[in-house]
Amino acid sequence: MLTVWSEARVAVVGATGAVGREALAILAEWGHPIESVRALATETSAGQSLAYGATSLETRALTREALAETDVVLLAAGAGPARELAPELIRNGRRVVDNSSAFRMDPEVPLVVPEINGDAVGRDTRLVANPNCSAILMLIALDPLRRAFGLERVVVSTYQAVSGAGLAAMRELEQQTRDVLDGGSARPDVFPEPCAFNVFPHESALDPATGLNEEETKMIREAQRVWADPELIVAPTCARVPVMRSHCQSLLVTLSRASTVAEVRAALAAGPGIEWHDADGAGTPPTALRATGTDAVHVGRLRSVPDGGEGRTFALWLAGDQLRKGAALNALQIARLLAES
Amino acid sequence: MLTVWSEARVAVVGATGAVGREALAILAEWGHPIESVRALATETSAGQSLAYGATSLETRALTREALAETDVVLLAAGAGPARELAPELIRNGRRVVDNSSAFRMDPEVPLVVPEINGDAVGRDTRLVANPNCSAILMLIALDPLRRAFGLERVVVSTYQAVSGAGLAAMRELEQQTRDVLDGGSARPDVFPEPCAFNVFPHESALDPATGLNEEETKMIREAQRVWADPELIVAPTCARVPVMRSHCQSLLVTLSRASTVAEVRAALAAGPGIEWHDADGAGTPPTALRATGTDAVHVGRLRSVPDGGEGRTFALWLAGDQLRKGAALNALQIARLLAES
Repeated sequence: MLTVWSEARVAVVGATGAVGREALAILAEWGHPIESVRALATETSAGQSLAYGATSLETRALTREALAETDVVLLAAGAGPARELAPELIRNGRRVVDNSSAFRMDPEVPLVVPEINGDAVGRDTRLVANPNCSAILMLIALDPLRRAFGLERVVVSTYQAVSGAGLAAMRELEQQTRDVLDGGSARPDVFPEPCAFNVFPHESALDPATGLNEEETKMIREAQRVWADPELIVAPTCARVPVMRSHCQSLLVTLSRASTVAEVRAALAAGPGIEWHDADGAGTPPTALRATGTDAVHVGRLRSVPDGGEGRTFALWLAGDQLRKGAALNALQIARLLAES
Repeated sequence: MLTVWSEARVAVVGATGAVGREALAILAEWGHPIESVRALATETSAGQSLAYGATSLETRALTREALAETDVVLLAAGAGPARELAPELIRNGRRVVDNSSAFRMDPEVPLVVPEINGDAVGRDTRLVANPNCSAILMLIALDPLRRAFGLERVVVSTYQAVSGAGLAAMRELEQQTRDVLDGGSARPDVFPEPCAFNVFPHESALDPATGLNEEETKMIREAQRVWADPELIVAPTCARVPVMRSHCQSLLVTLSRASTVAEVRAALAAGPGIEWHDADGAGTPPTALRATGTDAVHVGRLRSVPDGGEGRTFALWLAGDQLRKGAALNALQIARLLAES
């Protein structure tokens, strides 16, 4: 064991970003001692005061000195900085969680959702990749079905909040919405399309060979990797909706074995990290706003789908906070595993 | 033939609603003579001035007298009024298009998308039902594939604008959005959930036996009926997004026969009522805003989906104006067929 978690010195790199701020919020909720937390960012952001629960924390410039005397470093600064920073941090004895896509397909770096493959983090692990937000939410919702019945195929359509594109994207949605309500027009900057009162296919680059955008390719490859099932068919369609920070997903799964709605419901309701929503009675469905600020992946609207009597196909719906379980929460759960390994 | 279309006297019942106003806008665009158009509504709305192209039209109270001297009546007033009004209108020699769900499953009333089954409207047809908006958009997009390759299964997830719930819903989205941006909270009235910056499962009633909401059941039954294919598997998930008036859909189709992306693309691009969007080069994808105010169903993002080498499964994406092809435009195309039959 490196240390007990409560004594781990944690640095958040990219602390002024959407994921960095959320990581500080979660550490404060967890009661992590403020003196063991470093909020690091580019020099231009140094000195900025960031919320840490009821108190606040000063951002420091990202320097070697600032990174000294930390045990675990959470990189929430994008793929470029991650590729630059991670090797030296590891050489200097830090344990690193990277939120970017830089190392997710690196066979030597575990890609981890703690509820699913936390055992991939061992005593010698120095660097762990945090999966894509849409992948994490789908993995949490479907893992109980994989364990109980096996998965053969997943069809998923995402309704993605703008927060996945960062704080600037959230500000763009707010500003564009104000402009449109004031009778003006939306001026896209972060996104290629207006995001106010609009839905558009995910903005990441299209691969002409597959017709998939990068977000969709990530969902496929990361699900196959976390589940160690390269044969699994995942058919994603990723789209942006004018929502601040929670993603929804419409899922259709074909199980390996026949099952019933009652059995599938029982497996989902008992799934780690899942908040199950019954539709009947006073039940309320998973929605983007209901998920916002919560740790759980909210799952509901389960129903059986005709498949020629095989009884292996089911539809469900999820909502999850992109900045929480989709990013900062999962990364901090990994940080804790790393610190305690 | 009842009459030539340009001489048909058209009444729009529910003229002050979202679909009614759009019907007047389309009639004006088509150059339909204003003296042949009646805008009818409840007595409280009588006297209200409604846009008719560059000019305007006075709303009249819905009375027997106002309905006299009309040839075709477009009912855009909901299922209750439709059930009340349609029988008498027909007895009095009018031809009627109803936009509500009242007659959609009545075996004696054709359910029509003119590009697909316009031949269901004959000389003796007095009443035609206009399908559900989500169903129309899906039907237009997939009909070329049905004709060329046959359809075995359709999985569809909708991203539905609020306009389907009427003008009050559009105003609710606007007001809630203003309130939230001003630091207040959203007060749901038309919808059971806040619609500003939110995504939620479609608000129609859930059937506990199937787990489907009414919108999803409509998509299944109406697709099977318009295509006269009661065996077709349609697996819909319907959700609301904070968009004013255009729906998007993520579709996954399993064809009856193997095909290629090139063949499927050619069929879609030639499909009546479809505007095809290529993704490469300067291509722009179908988005809710790009579809708004246009007549076409915008289709793109075609790709092949792994299905064990069968080559029968493809994903695509559409956007269509819910008030145009999803409602008023399709209804007026039917009105024209009725007038000219």
